[in-house]
Amino acid sequence: MDYSQASLDLHAKLRGKIRIEPTVQIETKEDLSLVYTPGVGAVAKAIAENPALADTLTWRKNTVAIISDGTAVLGYGDIGPLAALPVLEGKSAIFKQFSGIDAVPIVLNTKDPKEIIETIVRIAPSFGAIQLEDISSPRCFEIERTLMERLDIPVMHDDQHGTAIVVLAGLINALRITKREMQDVKIVMNGAGAAGLAIARLLVDFGMKNVIMCDRAGAIYAGREGLNEEKREAASFTNLEKRSGSLSEMTKGADVLIGVSAAGAFTPEMIRTMNQNAIVFALANPVPEILPEEAKAAGAVIVASGRSDFANQVNNALCYPGLFRGMLDKGVKRVTTEIKLKAAQAIADSVTDLGPENIIPSIFQSGLHELVAKAV
Amino acid sequence: MDYSQASLDLHAKLRGKIRIEPTVQIETKEDLSLVYTPGVGAVAKAIAENPALADTLTWRKNTVAIISDGTAVLGYGDIGPLAALPVLEGKSAIFKQFSGIDAVPIVLNTKDPKEIIETIVRIAPSFGAIQLEDISSPRCFEIERTLMERLDIPVMHDDQHGTAIVVLAGLINALRITKREMQDVKIVMNGAGAAGLAIARLLVDFGMKNVIMCDRAGAIYAGREGLNEEKREAASFTNLEKRSGSLSEMTKGADVLIGVSAAGAFTPEMIRTMNQNAIVFALANPVPEILPEEAKAAGAVIVASGRSDFANQVNNALCYPGLFRGMLDKGVKRVTTEIKLKAAQAIADSVTDLGPENIIPSIFQSGLHELVAKAV
Repeated sequence: MDYSQASLDLHAKLRGKIRIEPTVQIETKEDLSLVYTPGVGAVAKAIAENPALADTLTWRKNTVAIISDGTAVLGYGDIGPLAALPVLEGKSAIFKQFSGIDAVPIVLNTKDPKEIIETIVRIAPSFGAIQLEDISSPRCFEIERTLMERLDIPVMHDDQHGTAIVVLAGLINALRITKREMQDVKIVMNGAGAAGLAIARLLVDFGMKNVIMCDRAGAIYAGREGLNEEKREAASFTNLEKRSGSLSEMTKGADVLIGVSAAGAFTPEMIRTMNQNAIVFALANPVPEILPEEAKAAGAVIVASGRSDFANQVNNALCYPGLFRGMLDKGVKRVTTEIKLKAAQAIADSVTDLGPENIIPSIFQSGLHELVAKAV
Repeated sequence: MDYSQASLDLHAKLRGKIRIEPTVQIETKEDLSLVYTPGVGAVAKAIAENPALADTLTWRKNTVAIISDGTAVLGYGDIGPLAALPVLEGKSAIFKQFSGIDAVPIVLNTKDPKEIIETIVRIAPSFGAIQLEDISSPRCFEIERTLMERLDIPVMHDDQHGTAIVVLAGLINALRITKREMQDVKIVMNGAGAAGLAIARLLVDFGMKNVIMCDRAGAIYAGREGLNEEKREAASFTNLEKRSGSLSEMTKGADVLIGVSAAGAFTPEMIRTMNQNAIVFALANPVPEILPEEAKAAGAVIVASGRSDFANQVNNALCYPGLFRGMLDKGVKRVTTEIKLKAAQAIADSVTDLGPENIIPSIFQSGLHELVAKAV
């Protein structure tokens, strides 16, 4: 179904998917004196003397800034900060609905990584955590890494780690169903952008030993010419046998094929050459690398995609509301690998009626976000 | 009454005086597809093609960023960005309650004017207007001026212009009651900080010809040694006779005495030497330059202060909700002198039961904020 016109109509009607609401009514002079001056003076003074009190006397500890420069918006690429705003607002609405977090959308009119970093560092005291969003690769790596070093609140680029966590969750369940051991499973990935690199890293961190990443030039291996910094690093912990060759050569005998690439990148022939009970994650959006029915006709037993109209949707929104809820509640200062692995395990474990068409929970599954928050 | 403990208790209970709420419920996959992907893709694309659509398809056009570096918080001075946060939250609650605006509090951990300017320019696409707050003088002048040049949305430093607008409104009514013509009235001001300079400018812009500003060294006049840039500029449109002398010398024969200075700066003796039917605005907070009863005992017939527990409270919150509502609704790109004068006149005209104890409306007066918005 095409939601374009209905969504445009809804947005035009709402004029904003989020609003700010006071938590206290101001109806009398007395109310005003408590909420604002002179009463608020004592609150300001208390925080000046003990800055930690900002966590209990303001909304800060319940907030996340969702920040984008508009350079990698959905499938459209660099379409500018204003165009990213409805996406960030949608995430804000999801944050509130599913975990009670106050998420403030902020779009930036600079694409310079240093300026982006400085800007976020300077506004950071306003917020309990930072979610980076729709920032293009490879800039997103430097931005996230530097912010994690400079800030003492959680910073996470959702397009990388949110995706990685949900993919790992789905894969944990896919391996359960197909009765594979994670250390033996042969995984081939196509696409070495921000999400691809983060997925590969998290799978390896979880204990999967045999991951091969491919880009347009084929398998990525240590020593391949022309690799950028991120791919060189990826080559240090994936494809340890340093195999070279095309994607279709790599898929031969693979157990799992994960695409974070482009529509049509997987052929039925590739899937036919995979091992029995092949698992396929075709995550390109809106059109996947291969349609689920085609992948199944070619022998795949479990197929996941990024689409809400197919089974097994890999959707970051399964993860971030609970993940940030947990981090804010526990006073976590940094998103660690351990936290990401626990979140993935919690999402995987939340699936009650496990099956090939049900390896990933619905965002509406009751208790999901609380489970993720508790796992942190 | 001391509101300190009650306000601390209220803040600890609320943990934030504002919250973000979705304007749309997300209860089904269908809802999610409209609010977020895939539907939001069409909205992002539409805005990319026509950025003006961000005004109707997102919350931007209903938002104001309230921004502070925490250097001039209430009467406490430079107590840091976190300490400013409860003040900004209070303003946000007031914005929503009185004019339906979504105001986002943002505190900055830099005091460098250039960095503050750069930061605000970079986050500006997220918002419909910028309200600067609690930024110390003289840094506030450069910051506001530069931002007004660089941004095409309204930027206003409330401590300057919000105060000036409400003072002018009160003065218009005080002159009505005491049957004075504005061009003849002799006005002496004490305090040449951000608010004092803005008040002087707005009074002169309104048509008051005889304004003398004083600082700790007495009357400010063109050519006085050691004047900073702002005071030199003030000397170009005030005190045209270039009188020199102390505050108590200046007050002799004055009609109006306005203090934006410090507790105790006005003595009964000063007021006794003013003209008949003296008008006194003693705006130092929380303790005014002179208490209203003392000023009256010395001959003042109309006294205003910054305090909610005295008559005639000069309170910026009378102005900014309606002012920003009007500017956002009309698509105003810059806060002009004309807009400020119209807002002041609207506030003055909104007083229905005019009298010496009632020259300034209550923030709760019905229709006040709508009148101000319409006047813009």
